[in-house]
Amino acid sequence: MDRKKNISMAVIKRLPKYYRYLRELLKSGVARISSKELSEQIGFTASQIRQDLNCFGDFGQQGYGYNIKDLYEQIGNILGLTEEYKMVLIGSGNIGQAVANYLYFEKIGFRICGIFDRNPKLIGLRIRDIEIQDIDFLSEYLKDNSIDIGIICVTKESAQSICDVLTANDVRGIWNFAPVDLEVPADVIVENVHLSESLLTLSCLLNDSTNYKNKSIIDKEE
Amino acid sequence: MDRKKNISMAVIKRLPKYYRYLRELLKSGVARISSKELSEQIGFTASQIRQDLNCFGDFGQQGYGYNIKDLYEQIGNILGLTEEYKMVLIGSGNIGQAVANYLYFEKIGFRICGIFDRNPKLIGLRIRDIEIQDIDFLSEYLKDNSIDIGIICVTKESAQSICDVLTANDVRGIWNFAPVDLEVPADVIVENVHLSESLLTLSCLLNDSTNYKNKSIIDKEE
Repeated sequence: MDRKKNISMAVIKRLPKYYRYLRELLKSGVARISSKELSEQIGFTASQIRQDLNCFGDFGQQGYGYNIKDLYEQIGNILGLTEEYKMVLIGSGNIGQAVANYLYFEKIGFRICGIFDRNPKLIGLRIRDIEIQDIDFLSEYLKDNSIDIGIICVTKESAQSICDVLTANDVRGIWNFAPVDLEVPADVIVENVHLSESLLTLSCLLNDSTNYKNKSIIDKEE
Repeated sequence: MDRKKNISMAVIKRLPKYYRYLRELLKSGVARISSKELSEQIGFTASQIRQDLNCFGDFGQQGYGYNIKDLYEQIGNILGLTEEYKMVLIGSGNIGQAVANYLYFEKIGFRICGIFDRNPKLIGLRIRDIEIQDIDFLSEYLKDNSIDIGIICVTKESAQSICDVLTANDVRGIWNFAPVDLEVPADVIVENVHLSESLLTLSCLLNDSTNYKNKSIIDKEE
């Protein structure tokens, strides 16, 4: 593959958005797009787009724009979307149910195979045809099934112990919604969704724009 | 205030985590902490911490470490946590309920004043003593109440029109959970929680560590 080494995390974080837009363009039958047109849709500058996409190969042809199908596939490769991911979901409260019901994930290859909870009122119920199992059987389930990603939607008090069960049973990806930083073995990847950090980023930017108007103290370009 | 200009977005994104840890330290009665000790708890390197905190004033005293209370308050200032934020929540499905039930937000000054939905089965019910109101009354409610932040937890199809109602009524902060990029006036701040982008970041890092082991193509330092 003709891609350069060391793609920065900043670029990686932007790739899902490219992927989402390219997917929509493909579905509507568009074959090529210039960085300028893509810029108008996606909101990044054209030069940012050229720089980002240049990180992993030579896709744009001067004057012809990008071949959308090639670019979509290549970004899919980098995002690891060439295989199906098997996931378990722990904690079927509000956040857990929201995640389980989000159909887009399955469309792009992320399948929830098992759902676990410790609440007796929930055990035995079904979310999208998947029965909620007793958390006490998680370890056994993981021994019998090869699972790639564990989605942690439990309280911050329970999150680390659930995470330990997952990683002890070879789950290498943790998608963590609990408001806590998890400790994991070196070969395990954790991606956090910390809602409070997102809300505080918003208040910070609001506060900055209120108090500093045209002389913002934040460099938003980065 | 003795802080330097142009704090980068990368630093801003780390501040909520500092704030959370400093809050815990304060609650447990710790008065000072060195960058090394803070590093062991928070997981950033000590030099990263010194560099970050140096952005907005001179807090650490060589050999004495940081005064936790001062630092906590200063970071709170930058995050805009000196005032209370009034919020409305639109869409009381799973994600909306999860957000409404997350007590930490209220503790640090974010208060949900109104909840709106268009589902007749939900209108009139209560989440934490806040009655769910008919979405048709949102505009009127916003005219009567000064609201800082609108939390959008509706479908991607409805998100833009809800956002338009919010911004037309002077709501300047949008916390968007719908998987869509919103168009807003220039003085409005949008912070997105796009779950699919988080999941794809995870699969990307998993894929990278599986396929490239010790020669990762991703520069995670950034």
